[in-house]
Amino acid sequence: MLNLRGGNYSGNQSKKEMKKHNFYAGPAILPKSVMRAAGKAVSNFHNSGLSILEISHRSKQVVSVMEESESLVRELLGVDDNYAVLFLQGGASSQFFMAAMNLLPADGKACYVDTGTWSTKAIKEAEKFGQVSVIASSKDKNYNYIPKRYRVPEDASYLHLTSNNTIFGTTHHWWPKTEVPFVCDMSSDIFSRPVDISRFGLIYSGAQKNLGPAGVTLVIVRKDLLGKVKRSIPTMLNYQTHIDKKSSFNTPPVFPIYVSMLTLRWIKDKGGVDAMAKRNKSKAGLLYREIDRNPLFQGTAAKKDRSWMNVTFLLNRPELEDKFLAACDAAGCIGVKGHRSVGGFRASIYNAMPRNSVKVLTEIMADFAEKEA
Amino acid sequence: MLNLRGGNYSGNQSKKEMKKHNFYAGPAILPKSVMRAAGKAVSNFHNSGLSILEISHRSKQVVSVMEESESLVRELLGVDDNYAVLFLQGGASSQFFMAAMNLLPADGKACYVDTGTWSTKAIKEAEKFGQVSVIASSKDKNYNYIPKRYRVPEDASYLHLTSNNTIFGTTHHWWPKTEVPFVCDMSSDIFSRPVDISRFGLIYSGAQKNLGPAGVTLVIVRKDLLGKVKRSIPTMLNYQTHIDKKSSFNTPPVFPIYVSMLTLRWIKDKGGVDAMAKRNKSKAGLLYREIDRNPLFQGTAAKKDRSWMNVTFLLNRPELEDKFLAACDAAGCIGVKGHRSVGGFRASIYNAMPRNSVKVLTEIMADFAEKEA
Repeated sequence: MLNLRGGNYSGNQSKKEMKKHNFYAGPAILPKSVMRAAGKAVSNFHNSGLSILEISHRSKQVVSVMEESESLVRELLGVDDNYAVLFLQGGASSQFFMAAMNLLPADGKACYVDTGTWSTKAIKEAEKFGQVSVIASSKDKNYNYIPKRYRVPEDASYLHLTSNNTIFGTTHHWWPKTEVPFVCDMSSDIFSRPVDISRFGLIYSGAQKNLGPAGVTLVIVRKDLLGKVKRSIPTMLNYQTHIDKKSSFNTPPVFPIYVSMLTLRWIKDKGGVDAMAKRNKSKAGLLYREIDRNPLFQGTAAKKDRSWMNVTFLLNRPELEDKFLAACDAAGCIGVKGHRSVGGFRASIYNAMPRNSVKVLTEIMADFAEKEA
Repeated sequence: MLNLRGGNYSGNQSKKEMKKHNFYAGPAILPKSVMRAAGKAVSNFHNSGLSILEISHRSKQVVSVMEESESLVRELLGVDDNYAVLFLQGGASSQFFMAAMNLLPADGKACYVDTGTWSTKAIKEAEKFGQVSVIASSKDKNYNYIPKRYRVPEDASYLHLTSNNTIFGTTHHWWPKTEVPFVCDMSSDIFSRPVDISRFGLIYSGAQKNLGPAGVTLVIVRKDLLGKVKRSIPTMLNYQTHIDKKSSFNTPPVFPIYVSMLTLRWIKDKGGVDAMAKRNKSKAGLLYREIDRNPLFQGTAAKKDRSWMNVTFLLNRPELEDKFLAACDAAGCIGVKGHRSVGGFRASIYNAMPRNSVKVLTEIMADFAEKEA
């Protein structure tokens, strides 16, 4: 039995016309209204007769985009003036070293919690700059949980966390108790729920999951933590440069920032991060319930650490994997194949993912189990 | 007298409808056909039912964009397999330090020719990594010429040049005679003319003048020059990382690369860089002839070093500057105000600038001189 209300699982439409349900892990789904407005800005920005792609970053129009983007980040996450909000380039991968370069004195110590591939990369880059102590890890169980009950040394410069682990489908649903400021990679769950910004010294996030297209990185940094390292930092790698020049020391990635601004407006219109959290919890619940109910599937992440953004699951009969992926494909569900580190499947259901698309996926799973029973 | 054939200098149209002639220095004009195709890809990429903004960088479609972009760069500039072609983030401003970080041994020496603001910045960043010798400069005359007749020490690791100086309107129309490989910032004139790639060790270029929108940086590097420095380089800052992973070690800026690919296709369709050079020389000639002929105006750059990309000029009666800018504005010519370092005016007339728009500007100048005579 397959409920077709929201899906396109009928096979009557040509592939070209079929509505797609985009479960890519990133670059990932953005709201349809954002994409429409973005396409329009490429053709004719604000009826200026020019494309947003060809306007000077010093023009009033682009300066206004930069200002509104910053202001929306501050409003949605409750970021006060003690923090700078920056739009940089180079992805979270560049923040792995920039965080340590700017915040870890050569004779200091940084603590890291290792919750998967991205944490591991962050650790590797930080080790080039000072002492790095990995105080907890879930590597023993292929990162299927978030480590708990570890102690954070009070003399650490910062504690690095990866709030959501895209590959392993785990999330910090709580934060460690410590006075040490967090440095946090929020690439895959920023704006998906409220956070208490005052606990964080630095938040960084590649845009291409919950915020915008690839090509811009959001950085939120507590200004009083800067300027304490003695090393010589190239101008472009010093957060202070970008604070002083309001993210326009050099030409910023205008279009990715513009699309991010449109997404932030959409989040605000939908009720902000509280509304997002409610919606995300409910969407994820729908999928986890099907995984737990369906005898053919099992989740990979520890239940209390399950991500609302990336839902990882396996088939109990792995020989059916290709067949299941074909069923997904036939219904317009794309990007469901799991990362090679975990295998199986991963459904990335970021803010912009309609509840209905999640429902279509659960229906495919139910139908598949029935057929294969 | 004003020839209205191509212009919109009639005042009959509302500002909203008026055709714009975009003389911005960067982000700058791109071909209309590129903007149309880019807007379409944002709405629906290759009839996939998805936007190019929400497709995984590991998808076949995006991998194909990366491959075609590289292949077009190789074809248009004649880049052989001894060189890598990379699409990175962070702009030329990041290449200022990455070039030295990757190519200048701590006990080595790099030579720089100082031809203006961007050269000066490149020098400042390189000094953090080794000995930097500024072997020639045109600072004595506010960078209005390209230094000549200097000697390049044979033991230098590289000679850094800025091929075209956006702010000062000067260009290298010749290259120094030396066996030392050039490291060259071609941000504002790449693909505007043919170059003998074999003279270059490293070419870098922010996209936002002749190539695409802001947010991607083209790097062409001779592979045998790498791996010779001993310092520890963060993974993201090591050219070798991006060579090994074909510019997809981390998520590349997909959309800026896609638009660059469209522009490269356009250049190829128009006859390649030889055709661009012919067209650019002719367009620039049109404007310089008006500057030289018109008693109200004078060029700022030494005649033999005049840029084909950025034409800088002054009013002989500076009190008329605002009035002239208003005349430009009334005719839809935007971005003509000069950089504060030079004053006066700057018309940036990159590859995509139609000859007709240049003509409109010369007509405004002629008309203005007649009225003010």
